[in-house]
Amino acid sequence: MSMNTWARARAGPGLRLHFLIRGGHRGRLAPSDTTAVTARALSAFYHPRPHQREIGLGLTFVSVRTTSSGSRGWGHKKFQPHQRASKVVSLREWLAMDPEVEALLAPLRALVKEQGDVVRELKTQKAPEMDVKKAVAELKVRKKTLEDKELELTPAEAFFDRAKMEDLLKRRFFYDQSFAIYGGVSGQYDFGPMGCALKGNLLNLWRSFFVMEEQMLEVDCTMLTPEPVLKASGHVDKFADLMVKDLKNGECFRLDHLIKAQLEKVKSEKKATAEVKARCDDIIVKLDNMGAPEMSAIMKEFSMKSPVTNNDLSEPMEFNLMFQTHIGPTGLMKGFLRPETAQGIFVNFKRLLEFNQGKLPFAAAQIGNAFRNEISPRSGLLRVREFTMAEIEHFCDPQDKSHPKFDDIRGTEICLYSAANQMEGKSVYKTTIGEAVDSSTVANHTIGYFMARIQQFLLKIGIDPKRLRFRQHMGNEMAHYACDCWDAEILTSYGWVECVGCADRSAFDLNQHYKATGVKLCAEKPLPEPVMENVVELITNKSALGKTFKKEAKLLTTHLANLDTAAVESIESSLNSTGQHSVEIDGQTFTLTKDMIVEVKRFQKKVFVEEIIPSVIEPSFGVGRIMYSLLEHSFRVRPDDEQRTYFSLPAWMAPIKCSVLPLSNNPDFIPLVKLLSKALTEAEVSHKVDDSSGSIGKRYARTDEVAVPFGICVDFDSLKTPHTVTVRERDSTLQVRMPVDDVPEVLRRMSQGKLLWDDVMKKYPKFEQQQSSQK
Amino acid sequence: MSMNTWARARAGPGLRLHFLIRGGHRGRLAPSDTTAVTARALSAFYHPRPHQREIGLGLTFVSVRTTSSGSRGWGHKKFQPHQRASKVVSLREWLAMDPEVEALLAPLRALVKEQGDVVRELKTQKAPEMDVKKAVAELKVRKKTLEDKELELTPAEAFFDRAKMEDLLKRRFFYDQSFAIYGGVSGQYDFGPMGCALKGNLLNLWRSFFVMEEQMLEVDCTMLTPEPVLKASGHVDKFADLMVKDLKNGECFRLDHLIKAQLEKVKSEKKATAEVKARCDDIIVKLDNMGAPEMSAIMKEFSMKSPVTNNDLSEPMEFNLMFQTHIGPTGLMKGFLRPETAQGIFVNFKRLLEFNQGKLPFAAAQIGNAFRNEISPRSGLLRVREFTMAEIEHFCDPQDKSHPKFDDIRGTEICLYSAANQMEGKSVYKTTIGEAVDSSTVANHTIGYFMARIQQFLLKIGIDPKRLRFRQHMGNEMAHYACDCWDAEILTSYGWVECVGCADRSAFDLNQHYKATGVKLCAEKPLPEPVMENVVELITNKSALGKTFKKEAKLLTTHLANLDTAAVESIESSLNSTGQHSVEIDGQTFTLTKDMIVEVKRFQKKVFVEEIIPSVIEPSFGVGRIMYSLLEHSFRVRPDDEQRTYFSLPAWMAPIKCSVLPLSNNPDFIPLVKLLSKALTEAEVSHKVDDSSGSIGKRYARTDEVAVPFGICVDFDSLKTPHTVTVRERDSTLQVRMPVDDVPEVLRRMSQGKLLWDDVMKKYPKFEQQQSSQK
Repeated sequence: MSMNTWARARAGPGLRLHFLIRGGHRGRLAPSDTTAVTARALSAFYHPRPHQREIGLGLTFVSVRTTSSGSRGWGHKKFQPHQRASKVVSLREWLAMDPEVEALLAPLRALVKEQGDVVRELKTQKAPEMDVKKAVAELKVRKKTLEDKELELTPAEAFFDRAKMEDLLKRRFFYDQSFAIYGGVSGQYDFGPMGCALKGNLLNLWRSFFVMEEQMLEVDCTMLTPEPVLKASGHVDKFADLMVKDLKNGECFRLDHLIKAQLEKVKSEKKATAEVKARCDDIIVKLDNMGAPEMSAIMKEFSMKSPVTNNDLSEPMEFNLMFQTHIGPTGLMKGFLRPETAQGIFVNFKRLLEFNQGKLPFAAAQIGNAFRNEISPRSGLLRVREFTMAEIEHFCDPQDKSHPKFDDIRGTEICLYSAANQMEGKSVYKTTIGEAVDSSTVANHTIGYFMARIQQFLLKIGIDPKRLRFRQHMGNEMAHYACDCWDAEILTSYGWVECVGCADRSAFDLNQHYKATGVKLCAEKPLPEPVMENVVELITNKSALGKTFKKEAKLLTTHLANLDTAAVESIESSLNSTGQHSVEIDGQTFTLTKDMIVEVKRFQKKVFVEEIIPSVIEPSFGVGRIMYSLLEHSFRVRPDDEQRTYFSLPAWMAPIKCSVLPLSNNPDFIPLVKLLSKALTEAEVSHKVDDSSGSIGKRYARTDEVAVPFGICVDFDSLKTPHTVTVRERDSTLQVRMPVDDVPEVLRRMSQGKLLWDDVMKKYPKFEQQQSSQK
Repeated sequence: MSMNTWARARAGPGLRLHFLIRGGHRGRLAPSDTTAVTARALSAFYHPRPHQREIGLGLTFVSVRTTSSGSRGWGHKKFQPHQRASKVVSLREWLAMDPEVEALLAPLRALVKEQGDVVRELKTQKAPEMDVKKAVAELKVRKKTLEDKELELTPAEAFFDRAKMEDLLKRRFFYDQSFAIYGGVSGQYDFGPMGCALKGNLLNLWRSFFVMEEQMLEVDCTMLTPEPVLKASGHVDKFADLMVKDLKNGECFRLDHLIKAQLEKVKSEKKATAEVKARCDDIIVKLDNMGAPEMSAIMKEFSMKSPVTNNDLSEPMEFNLMFQTHIGPTGLMKGFLRPETAQGIFVNFKRLLEFNQGKLPFAAAQIGNAFRNEISPRSGLLRVREFTMAEIEHFCDPQDKSHPKFDDIRGTEICLYSAANQMEGKSVYKTTIGEAVDSSTVANHTIGYFMARIQQFLLKIGIDPKRLRFRQHMGNEMAHYACDCWDAEILTSYGWVECVGCADRSAFDLNQHYKATGVKLCAEKPLPEPVMENVVELITNKSALGKTFKKEAKLLTTHLANLDTAAVESIESSLNSTGQHSVEIDGQTFTLTKDMIVEVKRFQKKVFVEEIIPSVIEPSFGVGRIMYSLLEHSFRVRPDDEQRTYFSLPAWMAPIKCSVLPLSNNPDFIPLVKLLSKALTEAEVSHKVDDSSGSIGKRYARTDEVAVPFGICVDFDSLKTPHTVTVRERDSTLQVRMPVDDVPEVLRRMSQGKLLWDDVMKKYPKFEQQQSSQK
């Protein structure tokens, strides 16, 4: 496996985009595709030439104009294919999710293929033009039938208008490019009030879901990391991508992305022969395992130029993705911004183990920012240079990866896309996590436990279960130390996005840091019974060693004191036979002679514990990616007015829980509005008073845009005693009338998800009077 | 004012340490001392030569061994001055807090001074030795009387053992040096589970106290910042300290600290003449306004060498405190880690104003990390290279700095140390914030409002009100754009530490970013009535300009289009008189001739709004410093056992709210423990089950160490129905017996501060049986 793959795999969630290619491949580009396609390829993917709706039999592109949202409540599929080619979604991606749908389509596909073969055959045989025309007409009919069926079966969610959502996100400042007034920096985003509150809610829920409920040890480590730490973890040497530069203007391209995009282009050209196509596919499959020389050869083979300027390109060069700086005033201590938060936990392992009174298993967790100097960051929040991660490192006995709470989640249904299924071209399947572990598809109970908990968490925040799957890493994309790795992938308009990684990372990092520092990062495991252990120890003659090796003697004695039995006995035998023995330490050779050794001491020791280096199971969450996916999944358009867009976030995730709107700017409303605001603050219900002018309907629409789930309106009836107000729910736009005194507690409980709107509807009278004006 | 001061003042809380010097100065080192003393000087300060308990009349050093904590509940002042000189605290600092105490001491001080004068007079007159001896004996008696009184009046808090607290913080991993297994990096700390939870609680409270309650717009901006942004803010040019290097080993020293420390040493030498001392004082006072040449001259005047090696030192050099890196693969885009979070808010001003529907005032807030490459970071969490800040930028009309909620806090009592009092050598005084604003001591209502809120917040988290004051910046330490600045300073064993800055920063940053980008960062203020405005506009001949200036013509036309009336009229008159006019733009000179101007257009425009660049009031919180101060203020030692230390944090700040301890490892306890744990999780009460062996008393002591406020013990009586458990409170160690069913709700409410222990004591029977064994 390439180091690149290793580094990526190691370093937590990396964006992975999957799309369909010709010839019936389903799902991923190629079995070894562990990295994203370039934005350029993606752009070609989402913006095909007009009317080019079908590139091959296995691939259907659909140009849609979203006229209604995909919410179950609202969904009408208004499909207007030729109206505007603004957004393209891979239908097959959606359909591949559901084997039943695929079963319905299979016979139609077969009919198309059959007729396609007929047409080809007729052409080859140079049959009469009339016959060919008839056959083509029949082919067109069959294709149309297939397409109509596909559309019919396409879930409403597929008709998603990214431009419309992005407009809303920008306009209401959920997030936007950093330093925009200075021209912006790609790959950096600032979260505005709504994005920041959403992120806060997500992280708070994560804390209570994982840290609190699993009693994890949360830490908060520094981001600036000195070089030796990241040297040991492998990042200094291996956390790099190959890139090439435009020789004239210096523009940089990530090489694997560039090659893949150009090969896709070659394949899609009309003149491409079957041979060329096969050659391209072969390269794409092997790309991840290639180094600079092979990639360079491919660039030459296909005469690759800059896709932007068509200028010549440089030879491939390694580009380390870490941001480098210097710590302290001397300029001598090199440091990096951490590329992941995990290392902070590993270097604190001893302290954490001690905090846990020496006992395994335990988990540490950390929420924090990490940095990667991406060569060409694109795709919005999905590939950025500075991002928030939430990582868990669960330390356990390598011999015992059971989990005490596994039975609680054993029955959880889960969508798996196993390595075996990927290799055999099979699709995603549903099973329970219990069965997946029992059948060894998932390697052990602890990974299984976390997969179930990751899914529970993602569903709780509002991710659509139909657009969530767990994909297993295949042999060639998994880090060499990992026994198993599953990514929680979420389907967005960018394709399947890896949002949470869940890997069994064995003892790799603890071992590396031990080797680098000499500090043992291990736990003591009580033996079932004490055992007697034979010890063989070398007793050295310190003065003889000192005379011969001077300053270096200490290095040698330390080395000799830490030898195991076999090594000591090897020295003993070679001293006995040849009178001397060579020892190599850090490239230095020491020649031992008999006078330097006093004796080889043999004795027995009673041992009560064994030292073990724990295995690490690591669930690693990409916070920005999860947020982006959540926004896509909750984006809605009102069926009766496509300009009215909103986010259907669960109440507990909504940035602000409630709006307080006086019906008009009549001063009589003010005291009641103030009173309500105060009571809501006391009940810790975040809210926004909107006393701006504008109709109540417009103001509701404004609050809908920022996902406010509940709206309180103070109207003229509110002024009568006992005071009442109307409370409106965002998704249904239904309203009830409620006594003012009930509001804070009802809103608090609804905001926390402890009380459902349906129950509120049952308790309080429905309010309809102002509805027409409030729409 | 020096740029250094500017940069420091601008960039939020900077550590300021105050200590006493000879000659009766009280409080700060010198009026212009805005920066910390070096750790070296500090070390000399805290570790005087043995028995050197008194350096001068105005300065009393006290060596104490803490044998009991300073808690009001426990406090016995066991003073053992000569036992161990491990910790030194400035008594006078404590005493100066309380004018009543000072009043009691004043006559005793006068008696000492009187007798001192007598002794000096006798010596000058060469009086008989016997007379001198008698007078000196009397002086000693008077000094002893003063000293005893000082001790008697010293609050228990003064007897604080920092080493003991640091041992606990390290042992239970509240926080510790980062990358310790690699030798550590100075100025970087990792927060362990307890520190991390405490920090989380602090930030959550901050959010609900400021963001929620004041409905601020919270943002989350990137840390990596491109150079032009920090060039505009002034940080690239001015955020620097002067340093010198040891010419042999390269060790770096911050120059002002080095000079100050060496001059202090010179002054304290026996041979120092009054003249030399005066010269030293004069330099120290002026140090902040000195540049490299003056400081270099002083180094030569006093032949300064490295205080560590006595080697020669380099010439002074500027060292920018920002960490530099490169963004993107080309290496061409310079970037820095932000030195403060504020700039992220300023560059987003337009978006935020729009989010607030164009209305002033509003406040934005941000919690995030910032970075400063300190030359020699020391003093634990107080001066670090990576730290969390919580900043508020309140944007308001420069003509109207009233605050709608000022009357809510008008009566808040507050300790002020005004600039005037500092200059006149007067002390801190108590007043109300209303009086302080009415008397113009505090510049405006908005600063006053925030000062009161900052104080409320600090007291709420558990800062000792007796160790909190607001110190006003004096003219020479205030940034040039600021109208007023008050620091919330907290007294710790390091002296008074600036923890929150509260400054009126006028429109400086918005103006700077406007100048740099051309993007107007202003708000529209409706005029009381529309006004007619005379407009004078230059209509240029674009083709003539284009012919003459080619590519540069656009720059010129943009410039000319934005000129004000005076500038246009100046061009008009010089074209009329000389036929030409020179315009300077960015160092380029353009010569305008008559043919380039079509006409000077004059007309009237009806104007409804005026554009204003808002003023900014900025409360800026140093989170690590507040945490450290809080830990010092809440550190306690049990009076009956000085090995038992704990943190008396308020329940809402405690990292874990509750422990669940089975009395022994009897398996019968397990079901009830599990049940309790589950119920507490559901009630969102963070807790820790400790079923380790060890007596119940030892386990309570362990939980006390990490500030767990409540402990639940499951004992044999718990097994009887109805099930009951004991609940223990940390500070009093008192216990009650409570039905299991009541526990979650009672604990939840106590944890949030909504129910007091005293009330719980009233409701449930006191439990004493096991108390002796549980101590």
